[in-house]
Amino acid sequence: MKIAIDVMGGDLGAVATISGIYRYALENDCSGIFFELFGNEKIITSRITDLGRSTAFSYGIHDTADNVVLGSEKPTHALKNSRGTSMFEAVSHVANGKSDAVISSGNTGAYMALSKMLIGTIEGIDRPAIVSVFPNLNGKTIMLDLGANTDCSSTKLIQFAFMGQAVAKVLLRLNNPRIGLLNIGTERSKGTSSLEEAYNFLEKSNNVNFIGFVEGTDITSGAVDIIVTDGFSGNVALKSMEGTLRYIVNFLKDGFRSSAFSKVGYFLCKKIFGSLTNTIDPMRNNGAPFVGLKKISIKSHGNSDGIGFATAISVAVRLARSEFIKNIEEMISKADEKDSNESKSC
Amino acid sequence: MKIAIDVMGGDLGAVATISGIYRYALENDCSGIFFELFGNEKIITSRITDLGRSTAFSYGIHDTADNVVLGSEKPTHALKNSRGTSMFEAVSHVANGKSDAVISSGNTGAYMALSKMLIGTIEGIDRPAIVSVFPNLNGKTIMLDLGANTDCSSTKLIQFAFMGQAVAKVLLRLNNPRIGLLNIGTERSKGTSSLEEAYNFLEKSNNVNFIGFVEGTDITSGAVDIIVTDGFSGNVALKSMEGTLRYIVNFLKDGFRSSAFSKVGYFLCKKIFGSLTNTIDPMRNNGAPFVGLKKISIKSHGNSDGIGFATAISVAVRLARSEFIKNIEEMISKADEKDSNESKSC
Repeated sequence: MKIAIDVMGGDLGAVATISGIYRYALENDCSGIFFELFGNEKIITSRITDLGRSTAFSYGIHDTADNVVLGSEKPTHALKNSRGTSMFEAVSHVANGKSDAVISSGNTGAYMALSKMLIGTIEGIDRPAIVSVFPNLNGKTIMLDLGANTDCSSTKLIQFAFMGQAVAKVLLRLNNPRIGLLNIGTERSKGTSSLEEAYNFLEKSNNVNFIGFVEGTDITSGAVDIIVTDGFSGNVALKSMEGTLRYIVNFLKDGFRSSAFSKVGYFLCKKIFGSLTNTIDPMRNNGAPFVGLKKISIKSHGNSDGIGFATAISVAVRLARSEFIKNIEEMISKADEKDSNESKSC
Repeated sequence: MKIAIDVMGGDLGAVATISGIYRYALENDCSGIFFELFGNEKIITSRITDLGRSTAFSYGIHDTADNVVLGSEKPTHALKNSRGTSMFEAVSHVANGKSDAVISSGNTGAYMALSKMLIGTIEGIDRPAIVSVFPNLNGKTIMLDLGANTDCSSTKLIQFAFMGQAVAKVLLRLNNPRIGLLNIGTERSKGTSSLEEAYNFLEKSNNVNFIGFVEGTDITSGAVDIIVTDGFSGNVALKSMEGTLRYIVNFLKDGFRSSAFSKVGYFLCKKIFGSLTNTIDPMRNNGAPFVGLKKISIKSHGNSDGIGFATAISVAVRLARSEFIKNIEEMISKADEKDSNESKSC
């Protein structure tokens, strides 16, 4: 298996990505994996020299010199001008069938646009969805879309439900995940016409375990395994949750510093806070697949560190080892039954 | 000043509402306030007898016997069949100019529908917006709409910005609040056409302090005082945040119970957790005005306790003491300049 890595992407560039590979190799058997590294050869070599050869992994370097896609670059600009950059070449490697998956922590819009243009989407899919995993009170929940598809027809929402099911199979190891549609109330009369149409289809489908409308509280309640929503609401939910977490952590930190008692108290509870951070830290849930492409493309957080990047590698490897793309194609053809059923009823 | 109260509304009914009045009276000067209590007279009298006359407040009881709007009732049903209920009569009292504000913890959809039908909306407003206050790292943020207007044209978003400004004047005591439009990125090219149009208008307006697009993280970051969004995204954000808070609190509680060390640690930090709860507890930020009505109508959380209801009373009193409705009318006429400007440019 070959994993193409945009070494230069993200706020920390090679520091995070190379550390991430080391970390992944330390915790996993890498005997069947070859890392295709795209970036500045000097920087990559120097980083590997720094870290030493304490852990074993195989790799090849594709020197892209100082050519990178900048974080501020517009996707349309990147589409025309990014040939030769670490991101473009890494995505091309997968698109050309030379690697099995690609990972980048770089500019999300540009990476999405390049993945779409170079790899292409599965038939019936207009634009891939961004999928991520959230911790909940009993386990984990998958949510999609998180920002690629701002406005969603019922057909797109139905596709997301089926695609989410294929992701849950690999990442949550669930064969019959419970699927909910995000709405502003659980009553059937609530929401937009797209939601109503998607509800009507999913309710009748024998291919999904649809539980109905769910609300924002259910992202972390554990009442559902997959939450389907349009990219606007999904992104707002994701970022509202990040903000809340940041707010609470800051509030508690200030509090712990406020007296000798609370400093001692913090010391005694430290382990709990550590485990909270481990569980909800976006880095520990890093690696958001772009689902609906013909190959595996994984987006890692822009501010990802080595731990985060190792998690993204693990997502890429698990998807590449499974029959993920085949499953997605099958799922999409089931979702497409919507249109054929509709034609029949006309 | 007269405040009409739907005593029977909410999960706890009279237990919470009457306790809320006592609590409010304990902490505030009630000499100028008369509470008009709508509900079952026997229950109200018995609850007041239980609590004693330790605190002073003036009130009158309007007996509505056992007639209530149920939590499960559809708004359309309530519109036709709720005459004689505690909610209907309380809203009517304000609509008829006999009270200055109304508060209910009852069925949100029914209360919104009755408020709209009986009180009516300010000219130019189609449907009121639900406004709430959120704590942020430096103070408080107001967000609207939280669920009444699922789909929003640019005109509505612009109205929300102006209405939010009038609310911030009273509830946050800010004369020139920073206003942001909720989007999935801060770049100008992001988002829907409604957002783009609202951006173009607000950017040029001399009547608002518009800072541009903001993201979900900014609800709690303190970078902005008012967040304007459609009711769907606002509701998703609100509930995602509630869910995250619940998740973190549950996680920490389980952790604190896990060992003798952490139990002691919790004891030493207890004050900090208490103050976190006080700050972010929805009850402490209870009382969501329906803005855009001709009179003041305040929605209290369905599961509100006495503390929460007292907060909702305080919101009602502060709005009723200010020139809130007049300010909103002025603001709406400024927002309407959008349409006249547009006509001019045609």
